[in-house]
Amino acid sequence: MHVTSLRFTSETTSDGVSERLFTLGDITGVFWSPAEAAGRRPLVLLGHGGGGGHKKAPGVVARARRYAADCGFAVAAIDAPGFGDRPKTERDEHFIAGIRAQAAAGEPVLPQVARYNAVIAAQAVPEWRATLDALQETVGAIGVIGGIGDDGPVGYWGVSLGGAIGVPLVAAEPRITAAVFGLVGQETLAEAAAQVSVPVQFLLQWDDELVPRDAGLALFGAFGSGEKTLHANPGRHGEVPAFELEDAERFFTRHLRRMASA
Amino acid sequence: MHVTSLRFTSETTSDGVSERLFTLGDITGVFWSPAEAAGRRPLVLLGHGGGGGHKKAPGVVARARRYAADCGFAVAAIDAPGFGDRPKTERDEHFIAGIRAQAAAGEPVLPQVARYNAVIAAQAVPEWRATLDALQETVGAIGVIGGIGDDGPVGYWGVSLGGAIGVPLVAAEPRITAAVFGLVGQETLAEAAAQVSVPVQFLLQWDDELVPRDAGLALFGAFGSGEKTLHANPGRHGEVPAFELEDAERFFTRHLRRMASA
Repeated sequence: MHVTSLRFTSETTSDGVSERLFTLGDITGVFWSPAEAAGRRPLVLLGHGGGGGHKKAPGVVARARRYAADCGFAVAAIDAPGFGDRPKTERDEHFIAGIRAQAAAGEPVLPQVARYNAVIAAQAVPEWRATLDALQETVGAIGVIGGIGDDGPVGYWGVSLGGAIGVPLVAAEPRITAAVFGLVGQETLAEAAAQVSVPVQFLLQWDDELVPRDAGLALFGAFGSGEKTLHANPGRHGEVPAFELEDAERFFTRHLRRMASA
Repeated sequence: MHVTSLRFTSETTSDGVSERLFTLGDITGVFWSPAEAAGRRPLVLLGHGGGGGHKKAPGVVARARRYAADCGFAVAAIDAPGFGDRPKTERDEHFIAGIRAQAAAGEPVLPQVARYNAVIAAQAVPEWRATLDALQETVGAIGVIGGIGDDGPVGYWGVSLGGAIGVPLVAAEPRITAAVFGLVGQETLAEAAAQVSVPVQFLLQWDDELVPRDAGLALFGAFGSGEKTLHANPGRHGEVPAFELEDAERFFTRHLRRMASA
């Protein structure tokens, strides 16, 4: 992975935010930054959700543009293996068919989904780390984020599949110093959560039809972080209220800007 | 109560915030407002905690001054019956002696504390409502908050004893349109919580030694509000993190300023 270099394949700018598509070997990604590109700035990594999610899903793009425009952050998203511009493998098709069959039979799909997400995460975690290496080298070299070898502040935001990938990623990656997770439970994630020590904001939907409330609460309890806050709201899996967008923005501003100015 | 009128007994101004002590019959209170007093503004009522709490406890004063200085709110706090400048009755002494004896014997005190708080709340709720009447008439008449008969936005903040009083107060008082509660459980409060329909932010301490986690979670679940957010943080009863001060400020700004400009 490390011998492959990051290639920007397109660049567009609108409303003060520049958006660059990139590839890194098989990985397909997007990098957003304020169009006024000069100056070092924190980087936030965005993990998309499952079930049709991808690096340019509307929620990902809206969040990325807000972080760039309102907070001055650089932002990156990559397609998880089998999502967006990346082909599904036989393994993916097999898993998905199994989950659909269980759902059709009225059986709980969470254990299956959690297992599938864990398999994706095992591949996605090293991909994210390689992407972070490449972004810090490539984009860092032109001054948009911290330069080579720089320990500039990096955050991670991801819920649902993005949480299932993010928890082991943040456990493994010391460059990430603040994270927002959510909409996942303790299945397959409790051990990694215990290794997370950075500030965490954790989103839980009180009436989540996919993740049982107790599983989400148990995962929140499992994080090793000294500073962690659970934000629980009424509603189903897909109904995180809009004001949490702003709350996460302030969380990253508080933690990443503080580090940037330290 | 309603025939008694509110009397201001002192006024001091520092750091751009004016602080007026007042009495309303037996009730002793404080009213804070930006020293630039002209202009209508939202009013936030602050309920102090138990165990030595009172209207001018350091946490109450710090919050009040911040709300006035940063958000431009008017703020009021009153002593709960038997707290601060208000004499304890025989009933209070009896309750407190009982709770101390149970604590000394190593027995759980929560049921006793919840019962005591419910007794205090039964008296405190009409006192708060009379205070709100009087403030809207007296201070409203000079234009610092909404005038007589005005339905200007009013918020309530109170945790621990302030939550035990606040939940039934907000259930009963339609003028209060947004509330922050916390550090209380469902004992004696679930029924009133179900009648609360305004936006609620609810603080829960994950390692609360007084309020069992499940009791707090159950109370959050019981609120009738369509918009309610649980903020849970690690730590004991008294260890709510400092950033929640700012979060509550934004919650009130979002809800009370929106109403004020509507």
